[in-house]
Amino acid sequence: MPLTRISLHAGKSPDYRAALIAGVYAALRESFAVPEDDLFAVVHEHGEADFAFGRHYLGIVRDADLVLIQITANATRAPDQKRALYRAIARNLGRDPGVRPGNVFVNLVEVAPENWSFGDGGMQYGPPDP
Amino acid sequence: MPLTRISLHAGKSPDYRAALIAGVYAALRESFAVPEDDLFAVVHEHGEADFAFGRHYLGIVRDADLVLIQITANATRAPDQKRALYRAIARNLGRDPGVRPGNVFVNLVEVAPENWSFGDGGMQYGPPDP
Amino acid sequence: MPLTRISLHAGKSPDYRAALIAGVYAALRESFAVPEDDLFAVVHEHGEADFAFGRHYLGIVRDADLVLIQITANATRAPDQKRALYRAIARNLGRDPGVRPGNVFVNLVEVAPENWSFGDGGMQYGPPDP
Repeated sequence: MPLTRISLHAGKSPDYRAALIAGVYAALRESFAVPEDDLFAVVHEHGEADFAFGRHYLGIVRDADLVLIQITANATRAPDQKRALYRAIARNLGRDPGVRPGNVFVNLVEVAPENWSFGDGGMQYGPPDP
Repeated sequence: MPLTRISLHAGKSPDYRAALIAGVYAALRESFAVPEDDLFAVVHEHGEADFAFGRHYLGIVRDADLVLIQITANATRAPDQKRALYRAIARNLGRDPGVRPGNVFVNLVEVAPENWSFGDGGMQYGPPDP
Repeated sequence: MPLTRISLHAGKSPDYRAALIAGVYAALRESFAVPEDDLFAVVHEHGEADFAFGRHYLGIVRDADLVLIQITANATRAPDQKRALYRAIARNLGRDPGVRPGNVFVNLVEVAPENWSFGDGGMQYGPPDP
């Protein structure tokens, strides 16, 4: 169910971008108990003028390889699961495709389970149709 | 007021993409009582490496024609309205531009009415300016 | 912490797009007390078929120069701060790059402070790690 939207500077290889998606998905599987095949993710590439960031906000070191990850998910996770997710994403992306941990930015947007249709016009996580 | 963001694989015609926007808008008009001309929507096209999805999650059949639709709207709709919206979107997109129902993915993000400015620097849905 | 996502028609100069980011950031600094260097923003350009809007919804005059601004931020601001933000964004973008106020659309998505990782795998705004 999570819908993952990743933004980064243009210029990385397709393999690099696919590895970003794979690393976030693996972290969601591990920390948020996301089921197998529950993968929905897109990547947006941006030119220089279209991607701006603070290089030192909160004392973290960011550079042009920053990856902005916005994940929409059900509002069912405890703070400790979110903390574990952030750690797992930074760890996974550090291994492959090799993103420095300072360059891994994550934002969660939470919604109700009834706020998803996974296809066929259904509300698969919502209350039963009366 | 809904803001609609649609992602799909690159390669469809402009008419096809415009029909996606039109079909979602008509469904919002019908199921969410969205007023005429209250239309704000964008489409993002993605290459192969930048668009990933589970082909069989929840037993639904998805393929390369999957359309990911993320709609931000006021948190004022009941579950039955959301259910009706999902049905109407799948029905509309099935007719035009001809998307298989398994390829219609919808996610709602809900916000407060005061979270919109429709222009002129105003907060048109919020409490009156004291 | 705000994550700003801006959509507009393709064709404006890089300077124009950078000015959009700068104007929103300055408004967030002024109205939402966002700290210096807390800047995370992307711009998406869209072709004709991929960008649709109501030209007169709520009596506001919009044209092809419409700018759709979606800001994800902590759910900690009062309605008056949001009102001030909308005013400041419209004012700033009117000055530079010269967007008519009717063409400035803003939507806020609010999240919990624990929903951010600013890098290094941490949950910088969340409860302390027990």
